[in-house]
Order: sequence, then structure tokens, then C-alpha cells
Amino acid sequence: MAAKSSRPARKRFKALFRVYLGNEIALGPGKAELLVHIADTGSISEAARRMEMSYNRAWLLVRTMNRCFKEPLVLSSRGGEKHGGAQLTKSGKEVLKLYRQLEAKFETVTRRPLREILSRLKS
Amino acid sequence: MAAKSSRPARKRFKALFRVYLGNEIALGPGKAELLVHIADTGSISEAARRMEMSYNRAWLLVRTMNRCFKEPLVLSSRGGEKHGGAQLTKSGKEVLKLYRQLEAKFETVTRRPLREILSRLKS
Repeated sequence: MAAKSSRPARKRFKALFRVYLGNEIALGPGKAELLVHIADTGSISEAARRMEMSYNRAWLLVRTMNRCFKEPLVLSSRGGEKHGGAQLTKSGKEVLKLYRQLEAKFETVTRRPLREILSRLKS
Repeated sequence: MAAKSSRPARKRFKALFRVYLGNEIALGPGKAELLVHIADTGSISEAARRMEMSYNRAWLLVRTMNRCFKEPLVLSSRGGEKHGGAQLTKSGKEVLKLYRQLEAKFETVTRRPLREILSRLKS
């Protein structure tokens, strides 16, 4: 830590969007990232590995999403050595796209006040 | 819990914005709310009471904000039975306003995709 003290502290901004159904997080940044990796890899276990989480944790997140939405976001076949395959449903792709829209729209409109806030931080 | 099971689960959305300087949260929803209450009450202890947090915790949050920004956001005189008075500096008012702009702009542009996501949740 002391060795780093001469470097200016990094200024950054984080926006976190969460969708709740009751007390459950139906969708948030972690689940959205998981959806991306499932779409990329066609596999929950591979997606879990990329996010450095256990297969069981990833499976739990998928189950929560599927339970919260009217139509499941992920179709998967659990079991077997490779834990079967997985893919996003049409609804899953659409919900992920909508979530990305939230992030993109946010970034576009907040660029200016955000830059102004960050410029007021010490450097 | 069981008694509530016949009621539809509440759908809601939460956006959380945080500004970091290094590993410290320079500004986030809690600190922004604290600024509002300090401005309203002219007192850190009264602001703390309204947020149901201890005076020491509120003081810590104020200190962190003041340390992270070039110009302090809060001017206060600690001590005495009433812990002295406190008020937002010009910079504090401006930063709070900018933070509120982030939230407002976000709400405006994301209304549509957000409504679409929420409509896909079970009810």
C-alpha cells in the first residue's frame, strides 16, 4: 500500500442496476454477465468458470432468473460429466438486450454531470 | 411469509450510483441522502437521527466525502452538547445537484426498457 501512495488514486464510477421480484434479485450485473457467458459458451459450467464461480452458484443464479420471469431466460440440461448444454431462450436474449440498453442509455445521458463530479475529486 | 404468499410479489427496480476515489466511496446513495438531511437540518446529529444511523457513522461519512473531494462538501463544527452545526458548502450543493442529475437523467431515458423488463417478470 505504502509503495503505491505516490500514485494518484483512481477515480471511477460504478452504476449498478437491479431488478427485483419481491426480495429476489431477478436480474443484476452478475446475472447479466452470466447470461452473456452462457450465450458465448453454450454451457453453464463454462460460463461459471469464466466468472470464477462454482457451477452450483451459477446454476442457482440461473434458477432464480428462470423463476422470476414469466418465460425462462435459460434452457439447460443439467447432469452428465459436462453438465449438459445451455442456451438463452428468445426471452433471455431480449431481456439481456433490454438490460444492456439501460446501461448504454445511462452512459450516454450521464456523461456530462459524471465528468463534472469526477473532476471535483482529488487527484 | 406464508400469509403473504397469495399477494403478488412486488416488482421493483433499483439503480445505485457510486463514485470512487481509489477504494473509497466518495459519493453514493447513502452519502447523498446524508447531504440532503444536513442541508435540511443544519446538523449532522439531526441528519444522522433521520437516517437512523449513529452520529459517529454520519461523521465518518462526512469525513470521507470531505477527504475525497478537492473542496469539502460539508462544513461543520464538531463537539458541544449538540455537536455544533453543519452546512453544505457551495461545492457540496453543486456536487449533490450533479448527483441528483445522474439519477433524474437515468430515470428519464430508461423508463421504456425498464417498463419492458418489469412487464416480463411474473406477477
